[in-house]
Amino acid sequence: MSRDALPTLGISMGDPGGIGPEILVKALADRSVRRLARWRIYGCGGALHRAAETAAIEPAWWRVPAGDEAMIETAIGHDVLLVDYDADADRRWAATDREENGAVSFALVEAAIKDAKRPERDPRRTDGFVTGPISKLAWSLAGRGRWPGHTELIGARFGAKRFGMMFVTPRLRVILATAHVPLMEVRNVLTIGKVHEAIDLGAEACGRLGLPRPRIAVCGLNPHAGEAGLLGDEEERLIKPAIDIARGQGLEVTGPHPGDTVWNAAVAGRHDLVVAMYHDQGLIPVKLLDRDDGVNVTVGLPTVRTSPDHGTAFDIAGKNRADAGSMISAMGLAARMALGSAAGPITKPAADSTDPAGGPSRDAARA
Amino acid sequence: MSRDALPTLGISMGDPGGIGPEILVKALADRSVRRLARWRIYGCGGALHRAAETAAIEPAWWRVPAGDEAMIETAIGHDVLLVDYDADADRRWAATDREENGAVSFALVEAAIKDAKRPERDPRRTDGFVTGPISKLAWSLAGRGRWPGHTELIGARFGAKRFGMMFVTPRLRVILATAHVPLMEVRNVLTIGKVHEAIDLGAEACGRLGLPRPRIAVCGLNPHAGEAGLLGDEEERLIKPAIDIARGQGLEVTGPHPGDTVWNAAVAGRHDLVVAMYHDQGLIPVKLLDRDDGVNVTVGLPTVRTSPDHGTAFDIAGKNRADAGSMISAMGLAARMALGSAAGPITKPAADSTDPAGGPSRDAARA
Repeated sequence: MSRDALPTLGISMGDPGGIGPEILVKALADRSVRRLARWRIYGCGGALHRAAETAAIEPAWWRVPAGDEAMIETAIGHDVLLVDYDADADRRWAATDREENGAVSFALVEAAIKDAKRPERDPRRTDGFVTGPISKLAWSLAGRGRWPGHTELIGARFGAKRFGMMFVTPRLRVILATAHVPLMEVRNVLTIGKVHEAIDLGAEACGRLGLPRPRIAVCGLNPHAGEAGLLGDEEERLIKPAIDIARGQGLEVTGPHPGDTVWNAAVAGRHDLVVAMYHDQGLIPVKLLDRDDGVNVTVGLPTVRTSPDHGTAFDIAGKNRADAGSMISAMGLAARMALGSAAGPITKPAADSTDPAGGPSRDAARA
Repeated sequence: MSRDALPTLGISMGDPGGIGPEILVKALADRSVRRLARWRIYGCGGALHRAAETAAIEPAWWRVPAGDEAMIETAIGHDVLLVDYDADADRRWAATDREENGAVSFALVEAAIKDAKRPERDPRRTDGFVTGPISKLAWSLAGRGRWPGHTELIGARFGAKRFGMMFVTPRLRVILATAHVPLMEVRNVLTIGKVHEAIDLGAEACGRLGLPRPRIAVCGLNPHAGEAGLLGDEEERLIKPAIDIARGQGLEVTGPHPGDTVWNAAVAGRHDLVVAMYHDQGLIPVKLLDRDDGVNVTVGLPTVRTSPDHGTAFDIAGKNRADAGSMISAMGLAARMALGSAAGPITKPAADSTDPAGGPSRDAARA
């Protein structure tokens, strides 16, 4: 593969007091993932240096201060470029929900978004980005409370009319029809359109992952998928009509399946994608089966965005105890999706189809 | 162990068109579980004979017709006694939701309840019972729609003010704060009292299972357990106050934990019991981790009631493909709970503390 075929991918470091800096330096020290792309880190140099020191890893990035536009322009070709938002190595970020942490982690994501939105010929443009874990409470304390999470912010910044949250793990692919909504508010959010959108976006994302004809299973909302109407009517009112629409498009969709039993069939390989109606319905199996390998993918964007599927883990931050597995998977999947989406409107074409790392597969997240 | 120390346990066969008859004959053919109790089957002789024939198992029970009270009285000492509600061996029960199936499966459960409610010296009294899988839709078609499931019917018949649904598997113990409720109706059912009741009943049941000081984890209701109030207020309004009350009683309770991440800690042995707020939150991990070994236990009753945690599986009924593992676990756990609850108000005392089968343990469901 020629070097020019490498995608350029951003990485926002996440909350400076969380495990983001540590998993980032550990992931970059993994040569197999490092060479999949040119990486542009939006982070705090001080926090990253300390994390590298604690993990006994040699920092290997080219640092430029965030404000210095000219310097960034000239440094753009480096394999790993750190755009540094805080070089102060003596600064100790609290490992808890703090306004100042939230302000900086928010700024880092905005910077990653900005470069992914640049026009196609702009040398500072990226083909997508990976986001490190942030504290939503810290965002809220920093006055960013209107964004319940990365997904919603990124969807809005890209002006995406339809976008969604999908999880890709070695054993499951899951997309959520609703995400960061109080559970009892799902009644106000779940519509035929929402369910159909999740099916449709999920099918589209499966295409990018190398599954052009995914077998899609849709969960019910209620216990036993409503037990034929005895335990709730959303299956009849909302979910079945959405399935019918998707089938009308030619998609291979089954359901509504009981939310508690559908997962064994998915793990056994009988479903390629499961559409969950709400956050915990989809995330319980993801976290239980593949706790260290899950990748969160925002679907429906004109770019690639992935993220490890865990949080800031403040309790173990700074202790060199964090597992970088999910971050490595997120970076690998982003690189693959950026390369694989030749037909996509923004991302770079794959110059070489004999990609030695292999095409997208069931185990893509393990890349 | 003297033979007189054996408990007497009922088993309702479940829907005659489902896998109930098959798993029952297979479980009774397992000598290690058969000898744990005297078993009284409430079932259809024809369906059971056919299931035995299909599975190439020699029927080994003493049959008495359901209506013949005098004959039942004289047969009461048999190791396995079938109280027969339908001896017609030529009758073919449909493997689907049918009124006639619902009527008979309902009558079988009522019979099991009746004998468990008999006074202590009544020779026909049982120390508890196991229920085979039924179709709730069939119950509804048979005019029993007011009962969303076994648990609610049994709770009402025993006049239990507080009762709940718990699942015991080799790796998890889970109790539900709400069960067969449409998900969006949980808002009308979940109260501080309901959450506290689940904690308290779960702690009590753990005592019967040999864990007098269980470490109890309580789930949140909302994504990320409400993310400190950003994603719903039930954690603050209902769940934390219930936890505080339980702690005031001296129970060891943590939470609210995010519903998607708590399970790994439970599997790792850091929690003895998880309190889930609604059906799928608790059942997704149970079915995913221990699909063939889960036992459903009704807690809060003055008797023992267990059940396999799967349904009628009409799709594989009559094909000799059903796994009796969950039924075997349910029968084993019922026997253990009946023996272990010496202090209980109704069940028989354990005559011999050197029970060769071993005391209750983490693997009780495997018995």
